[in-house]
Amino acid sequence: MIALFTDFGRDDPYVGQLHAVLAREAPGVPVIDLFHAVPSFDIRAGAYLLPAYVEEFPPETVFVCVVDPGVGGARRALMLRADGRWYVGPDNGLFCMLVRRATEAQGFAIRWRPPKLSASFHARDLFAPLAARLARGERPEAEPAAITPPAGEWPEDLLQVLYVDRYGNAITGLRAAKLTPDRSLRIAGRVVGYARVFSEAADEPFWYENANGLVELAVNRGSASAVLGLKPGAEFTVL
Amino acid sequence: MIALFTDFGRDDPYVGQLHAVLAREAPGVPVIDLFHAVPSFDIRAGAYLLPAYVEEFPPETVFVCVVDPGVGGARRALMLRADGRWYVGPDNGLFCMLVRRATEAQGFAIRWRPPKLSASFHARDLFAPLAARLARGERPEAEPAAITPPAGEWPEDLLQVLYVDRYGNAITGLRAAKLTPDRSLRIAGRVVGYARVFSEAADEPFWYENANGLVELAVNRGSASAVLGLKPGAEFTVL
Amino acid sequence: MIALFTDFGRDDPYVGQLHAVLAREAPGVPVIDLFHAVPSFDIRAGAYLLPAYVEEFPPETVFVCVVDPGVGGARRALMLRADGRWYVGPDNGLFCMLVRRATEAQGFAIRWRPPKLSASFHARDLFAPLAARLARGERPEAEPAAITPPAGEWPEDLLQVLYVDRYGNAITGLRAAKLTPDRSLRIAGRVVGYARVFSEAADEPFWYENANGLVELAVNRGSASAVLGLKPGAEFTVL
Repeated sequence: MIALFTDFGRDDPYVGQLHAVLAREAPGVPVIDLFHAVPSFDIRAGAYLLPAYVEEFPPETVFVCVVDPGVGGARRALMLRADGRWYVGPDNGLFCMLVRRATEAQGFAIRWRPPKLSASFHARDLFAPLAARLARGERPEAEPAAITPPAGEWPEDLLQVLYVDRYGNAITGLRAAKLTPDRSLRIAGRVVGYARVFSEAADEPFWYENANGLVELAVNRGSASAVLGLKPGAEFTVL
Repeated sequence: MIALFTDFGRDDPYVGQLHAVLAREAPGVPVIDLFHAVPSFDIRAGAYLLPAYVEEFPPETVFVCVVDPGVGGARRALMLRADGRWYVGPDNGLFCMLVRRATEAQGFAIRWRPPKLSASFHARDLFAPLAARLARGERPEAEPAAITPPAGEWPEDLLQVLYVDRYGNAITGLRAAKLTPDRSLRIAGRVVGYARVFSEAADEPFWYENANGLVELAVNRGSASAVLGLKPGAEFTVL
Repeated sequence: MIALFTDFGRDDPYVGQLHAVLAREAPGVPVIDLFHAVPSFDIRAGAYLLPAYVEEFPPETVFVCVVDPGVGGARRALMLRADGRWYVGPDNGLFCMLVRRATEAQGFAIRWRPPKLSASFHARDLFAPLAARLARGERPEAEPAAITPPAGEWPEDLLQVLYVDRYGNAITGLRAAKLTPDRSLRIAGRVVGYARVFSEAADEPFWYENANGLVELAVNRGSASAVLGLKPGAEFTVL
């Protein structure tokens, strides 16, 4: 199985072009559009979201992960094996949290190059063909390499809103396992308590453990984003 | 074939997570993203739209239908066989019109539970694995059960706009077979006549029978939604 | 392989309905959602974008191309073979640039009709079943026919913005092979120079050859659309 995780959005032709390459180079392998709405260029949001979504995928899944504002520049192309799954993408910090949390991880700098490599679309020209090869059981030429740590300090968990979904739920970078239900959050000048599930919440905003293990702010049959004025980047504290 | 009908939208990671489960548990079965833009939480809009889209699917298709604001609460999980097709989803009214219009329908309360069931994402954890089993020809453990009728009065046809599409066409809950071309509609203070097809319409808004048998309001090379100020929920009468 | 190129958008049920027909009538054939965001009704934008995306597809790919405001009217249904690939869609100008640029092209007027043909959704009822037949190696009944040239003058390249992507990059109808890096563009009152790739650009807007050979206006980690106030249809000149 190949899974795609990018900031490409769904409307533009880019995702379709990835699928075309994968259908041609790894025929018969299922390709899953996991997430294409990482906030544009936001490597850090992608880095904290990615680990929450990979665990339900079977071992040997190959992830194509691309949030890549530096494409065509000096950043390396990376191939990564972590806890039995494969990842390909840019060495720009995107895999940083995945590696920190993995039981076992090994990075590789990719030496293989396609016959034709555009300057701006390595997802299509380099990462997708590589993923196809990995999914077919091949091991493209690469040398062991540590991933480059990102600039600045990246905490264990990120107390920020990373993504607002269609319902207005605000997904954060804090793993719910770090909190107990008696804790509250302070965000946008409000104190927000816990509920187990939407249908048990009152009309107030609440936080809960979402189905991928992250703390999420929500309103039952309403929009936490609208009620609290939340956008990606909004910070909070734990009380 | 498995078809998905939800209010999840296309941008969020939820649809991709369904696909991952289905690719793993029903390998080789085509999975169709039929519609993920049911207005959020709007069970009734979903209930009136669903029957319009199922008839073109082959018998034995399995539909995963999820508009599920009460997830994690007391509502039952339902498995339904209607006119040869299978449906799985919440017992909250979503299947109500489908059953009323079916020649033959049988509901089942689902007893099967997955090893791991999140409180908020039964589509991924319960309904998708069930659909995979049905598509593989298995019959998960379930007991015959009438579906729960929704609260309030639900008419045979709903004289409301249920969905506005990308072109600004307004899809309604009224089956076109109920009308003859000489009828007009009164909506947003305007009287709107019939046209067979866009290219035969003047510059005025018109209604026509859309390709799924529903009355739809449209403007040739324009937006009925913009011209008439229509949103989901807008009501009309037949003259 | 079958590839879809339309103005249907991704949210509405139309793309899913195409997939259902194709899964039923061409089982096992990969179907790629190449692009569904051609500006609504904009045949000309579609005509200039299409050739940029087809070359990376293998020979024998079948494209379903639909921007079809005249559906149900007098326009013919077309089947086209160009440089080894197949195309089906309306004869309204959409294939015009593809044919002009092809080394070898042959059009056919489609005589085949499905048992049930709606007035407004030929993509589902006519073009998708035809594409399935072509993908299966059949040759539906059709007679050689020249495609109808569009009204008005269509230049070799279109010095306009055709599409703005998720990042705010503005894709134009000018092939980059027509320009050298020393040329600048005048657009929205600004003079915009060349950069090879995003990471080499200063904070100013620049133009570059995008990964499909078209001139594209961009801002490194920013939005050219926002900075320059660009929308589809915006014109420019080459200095």
